[in-house]
Amino acid sequence: MSDLPSHVTVQEEGPREGFQIEPGPIPTARKIELIDALSETGLKKIQVASFVNPKRVPGWADAEQVVAGFKRKPGVVYHALWLNEKGLLRALEAGGLEMKGSISTTTSETFMRNNTNRGFAENEQVQRNQIGIYRKHGIPVERVGVMTAFGCNFEGEISTEKVLHSVERMLAIAEEEGVEIKVIALADTMGWATPLSIKRAVGAVRERWPEHRICLHLHDTRGQGIVNAYAGMEMGVDLFDASVAGLGGCPFAKLKGAAGNVCSEDLVFMCEEMGIDTGVDLERLIETARLAEDIVGHPLPGSVMRGGSLNELRKRSA
Amino acid sequence: MSDLPSHVTVQEEGPREGFQIEPGPIPTARKIELIDALSETGLKKIQVASFVNPKRVPGWADAEQVVAGFKRKPGVVYHALWLNEKGLLRALEAGGLEMKGSISTTTSETFMRNNTNRGFAENEQVQRNQIGIYRKHGIPVERVGVMTAFGCNFEGEISTEKVLHSVERMLAIAEEEGVEIKVIALADTMGWATPLSIKRAVGAVRERWPEHRICLHLHDTRGQGIVNAYAGMEMGVDLFDASVAGLGGCPFAKLKGAAGNVCSEDLVFMCEEMGIDTGVDLERLIETARLAEDIVGHPLPGSVMRGGSLNELRKRSA
Repeated sequence: MSDLPSHVTVQEEGPREGFQIEPGPIPTARKIELIDALSETGLKKIQVASFVNPKRVPGWADAEQVVAGFKRKPGVVYHALWLNEKGLLRALEAGGLEMKGSISTTTSETFMRNNTNRGFAENEQVQRNQIGIYRKHGIPVERVGVMTAFGCNFEGEISTEKVLHSVERMLAIAEEEGVEIKVIALADTMGWATPLSIKRAVGAVRERWPEHRICLHLHDTRGQGIVNAYAGMEMGVDLFDASVAGLGGCPFAKLKGAAGNVCSEDLVFMCEEMGIDTGVDLERLIETARLAEDIVGHPLPGSVMRGGSLNELRKRSA
Repeated sequence: MSDLPSHVTVQEEGPREGFQIEPGPIPTARKIELIDALSETGLKKIQVASFVNPKRVPGWADAEQVVAGFKRKPGVVYHALWLNEKGLLRALEAGGLEMKGSISTTTSETFMRNNTNRGFAENEQVQRNQIGIYRKHGIPVERVGVMTAFGCNFEGEISTEKVLHSVERMLAIAEEEGVEIKVIALADTMGWATPLSIKRAVGAVRERWPEHRICLHLHDTRGQGIVNAYAGMEMGVDLFDASVAGLGGCPFAKLKGAAGNVCSEDLVFMCEEMGIDTGVDLERLIETARLAEDIVGHPLPGSVMRGGSLNELRKRSA
């Protein structure tokens, strides 16, 4: 009836997502504290910082200090975000990060123009150049990202054909440039997805490229993050981006409508309760989610950190 | 691959659930305002009040005034909660309510003892007496409710056998007492359910009693309300209790861990976006959710009321 995976990998993006959106300045030491706590949860991949223009994203002006400060836990991969060669060089310089490249596009040219002032043709050239830069620095390129894969505020519905075409173009460029893509990441950038649209798009992509692993990047804008993750799992998806406590989102009016990634511990809870192994210690992740709330100083969207896990209740009732 | 229904009925319980838990006194006029707004959304069944002991639930001391005050919209069914004959008589006296009886049990005798100071045997007698009381007043009994159908804080895991046994006992009593049950309501009273446990229990119940309609009453304690509703729909369930804005829950620390029913507009959003008709005007329901937040004076858990529907975005992008 479904292809639920036996293991799910949760890629933690909370620090990067969260600290870029928070209005108040957050001390570097507290960012490091969160990353160190995440390292002890069993999460195997953590996005720890964003090397972007500090004038545009003041919350990450201290990316170098954060990356210099946290403890590397053996077996955990730490990585960062960058948007251009300058950022990439800063990340390289900072050191101790996994350096992997990706290329990306959107299904929606209108959004692309609004966001980056490029059209599809120009973006393809930019992505080719990106691959060249990665090659120059000996950085492998393994991931293709497709934004607005399930709907777009500017273009509305996104057809499966558009998704397939976007992936196809990126894979063609990768092949022409001689890099081997392993992961196709589909992002619900604007929170349009439902279980059915997830199944439609994931189904089409995995049928066309069965050898590639699919990653879902799900925004919880309309409360559908967890159900969309489940729909993905029913189609065999076993790789998800997520944010501890739902960092990046905020139920407060001052950040109205802001919604981050699907919440890591809510996702881990669902998986583990269904017998799907995540390798994550849910209790520690819940503690870390509460720490995240303490650090940002306001309620975050996560539910399990409020409701609690079932482990203690199970023990008591045994 | 799934039995998704073409139509889903959302039974609104927000006013009853919400106003019983809110710490601050809420003016009767504002309760009426919320019910009147709900009446205009297309919801066809609204639980408007709770006729319970005002000393124990001061938030519903004004049940009579609320029921006297709201406008009856033709085509909408209004009903109330009561826990004993005294409450039932108050509801009858108040008038203008749909009077239907139900009998109920829990899968967990420990919870039953804690909650009502009864064991299973005694509860069966109480339910028989209830049917007698309903008969005396000419009130049909159509619903069987099973609490803690997916897990219990006191007894832990709940086996499918326990769920089946609970339903079986209630149906046997109904038959012996000469009433015809139409709906079997399974409640995730303590927020233990996951999609898999929903599918397991619903699958077993519908296989055993295919002629009965199944209703799910899902608490969103751990953020699984929507995904559990979806899992239910995949098993053909087309009847859900829900609360506008997630009334009854609160993301604030002062009501830590409190979580109400699955949020009505988030559920309606998912259904309508998947082409499943609910008969509800999502825009009006979102407005009503915002009204509910205004009435209780603090953020409520709903997501779509913050993220907004896609209808306006679709129009703009067309």
